[in-house]
Amino acid sequence: MKQVKGGVTAAKGFEAASTAAGIKYKDRKDMAMIFSKTPCKVAGTFTTNLVKAAPVKWDQEVVANSKCAHAVVVNAGIANACTGDEGMGYCKETADCAAELLDISSDSVLVASTGVIGKQLPMDRIKNGVKNMVPELKDSLEAGHEAALSIMTTDTKEKEIAVEIELSGKTVTIGGMCKGSGMIHPNMCTMLSFVTTDAKISKQMLQEALSEDVKDTYNMISVDGDTSTNDTCLLLANGEAGNEEIITKNDDYIKFKEALNFVNTTLAKKMAGDGEGATALFEVKVVHALEKEQAKVLSKAVITSNLTKAAIYGHDANWGRILCAMGYSGAEFDPEKVDLYFESKNGSIQIIENGVALDYSEEEATKILSADEVTAIADLKLGEAEATAWGCDLTYDYIKINADYRS
Amino acid sequence: MKQVKGGVTAAKGFEAASTAAGIKYKDRKDMAMIFSKTPCKVAGTFTTNLVKAAPVKWDQEVVANSKCAHAVVVNAGIANACTGDEGMGYCKETADCAAELLDISSDSVLVASTGVIGKQLPMDRIKNGVKNMVPELKDSLEAGHEAALSIMTTDTKEKEIAVEIELSGKTVTIGGMCKGSGMIHPNMCTMLSFVTTDAKISKQMLQEALSEDVKDTYNMISVDGDTSTNDTCLLLANGEAGNEEIITKNDDYIKFKEALNFVNTTLAKKMAGDGEGATALFEVKVVHALEKEQAKVLSKAVITSNLTKAAIYGHDANWGRILCAMGYSGAEFDPEKVDLYFESKNGSIQIIENGVALDYSEEEATKILSADEVTAIADLKLGEAEATAWGCDLTYDYIKINADYRS
Repeated sequence: MKQVKGGVTAAKGFEAASTAAGIKYKDRKDMAMIFSKTPCKVAGTFTTNLVKAAPVKWDQEVVANSKCAHAVVVNAGIANACTGDEGMGYCKETADCAAELLDISSDSVLVASTGVIGKQLPMDRIKNGVKNMVPELKDSLEAGHEAALSIMTTDTKEKEIAVEIELSGKTVTIGGMCKGSGMIHPNMCTMLSFVTTDAKISKQMLQEALSEDVKDTYNMISVDGDTSTNDTCLLLANGEAGNEEIITKNDDYIKFKEALNFVNTTLAKKMAGDGEGATALFEVKVVHALEKEQAKVLSKAVITSNLTKAAIYGHDANWGRILCAMGYSGAEFDPEKVDLYFESKNGSIQIIENGVALDYSEEEATKILSADEVTAIADLKLGEAEATAWGCDLTYDYIKINADYRS
Repeated sequence: MKQVKGGVTAAKGFEAASTAAGIKYKDRKDMAMIFSKTPCKVAGTFTTNLVKAAPVKWDQEVVANSKCAHAVVVNAGIANACTGDEGMGYCKETADCAAELLDISSDSVLVASTGVIGKQLPMDRIKNGVKNMVPELKDSLEAGHEAALSIMTTDTKEKEIAVEIELSGKTVTIGGMCKGSGMIHPNMCTMLSFVTTDAKISKQMLQEALSEDVKDTYNMISVDGDTSTNDTCLLLANGEAGNEEIITKNDDYIKFKEALNFVNTTLAKKMAGDGEGATALFEVKVVHALEKEQAKVLSKAVITSNLTKAAIYGHDANWGRILCAMGYSGAEFDPEKVDLYFESKNGSIQIIENGVALDYSEEEATKILSADEVTAIADLKLGEAEATAWGCDLTYDYIKINADYRS
């Protein structure tokens, strides 16, 4: 596996375009389109929130029932959530508009929205945006990059990644972009992720690879514990790499899944590290657990603990908060066996041995915790399973972004 | 039921004392003692955190196996959590010291600690504190009030309450004090609550009343979602009111439980409203639910949502965040039936009808949300059950208290 430049247009046959449709933001692009002339197999995973945005419902239908997918139309600024039948109608109108211009069928167009909830989409601007983008579709890395910029809301950095692998002698590329940082206007954190590949793979294998992988990647990050109404991850595969089609969980499937995992992990970490107001990516590894599920529950409890997140902001080696969060996570473990380490580019230090604090240097710990990527490793000394979760620190700016918006 | 002045010394036969033992804080009291010469039935509920502080383990043993209880010794400053066998030994030393001076048995002495975890108690100071307090024990309301002040950590207000009821022609009093606000030094939020009553009631009924009631009171508040290692609620009953002993769930039991509920609800709300950095108590009522459990899960999800809490700080009628939190709570409901209202001393306003925003005045909503106690009411229109949860807003000061402590 080799990391290469680019994002959603890195894989063969994928084009992108973006435009300033004026939905909410001034002086910036706020719509993007991804297109593959070759029909794609499509897999998707979506928010588990009972309150699902209209585009989530639309895409679930496309992923479940459409023969193929060709295009994705994304807008930032309005989430099209809690918008009732009117909002559902706008998904169809957007898809119809793109379908007509691209000469494809409406049910091969996916849509995604992020932004304010409760507001209806301004359909004239959305349709104008689609009309402006279609003639601009390009397969350049630059076009993909512009698309990644266009879907940002409170994100401070665009997020894209691409890798190459070789399957049955053919070069296969997987690339993706995503956005996600926290809440915007009076609204909810929206994570949107779009991954494209030219791999030839059956729809079933594609969905299985994605469904398995999100559990270890997107589902292991948290900025504020608030599950959005719009969370969407789409994976499109157009088969243009010409590899032998993956139809079983063979060696090629494993290689594909490894590459997909790298792409998704990278995108997920970019979101956690760019969490609203964050100054640091906070990674928590739980190792030597009895079972993977146990390790996942424990690592997620730590990265979602407000108190731990505030301590990370203060560069404070507050191991008591970490042990406390593990304790209330619901997972079983023996607190009196736990070893705890902090690690960053500034060094590594052990803080706890067998549940009791060592005589460590606070100064050294603070230095390690002052990096922009900080890792805590909890060694349970029980078995061989492990898991990693990613979050960020909790800062004044998180409050500022989410309290002051409308005042 | 009549609210009366006082706290833990309001009920007949209960005395209190407090002292500045110098455990961590300078120039203030940091130890308290509650004593009843008449032996008490004792009920307790404790943290569900797997990492339990030594005093929690000690008290669980006393509640489960001791014939009676006479005294409670509390210290602020050090939590005696994650302190291993040494910490357990200090619980016994404290109880032994108090028992000798009070001429009672060690296993009738309860202990409670709140503060830094991982540090051992300075036993010389603790014992000196006990020695100083025993001769000072008084049944005055002032002595109870001083005790409530002594157990504070990051609390900004002392928390006490007392009520009177009449059972079988006798006046029965229930009074209590608690502390709880968030985390201190490198440590965890600790909620300690001590309720005394002169009611005559069997140990079994006492424990049942408490165990049932904490589910609707203390377990329905949250400051930061972090369950402490030290959470403790103790209820002592010395029977001095002389009422007919409550041994079944008769009318007297119901009256007693109503009064206990008022005491616990009041103390719990005081903690939520005095959450670290909080500027407002945030109450969430879910009404017309199918089942109480559903209403509880939904109301708790809203008060623990960081995004909602930040919006309350900003006086922002951010209904999308509330609906979002309800949606990811795990409880079933129909988002398209929900009505939502905000209420405070400044007025009342409906924001959503059947899941869709009304054309409400943002100005009016902001005025209502600017009070120091704010209520959101979500009407599910499904059945007759309801529940209430209490939290607070998420503010810059919460970050300051928890990030800057050691820097």
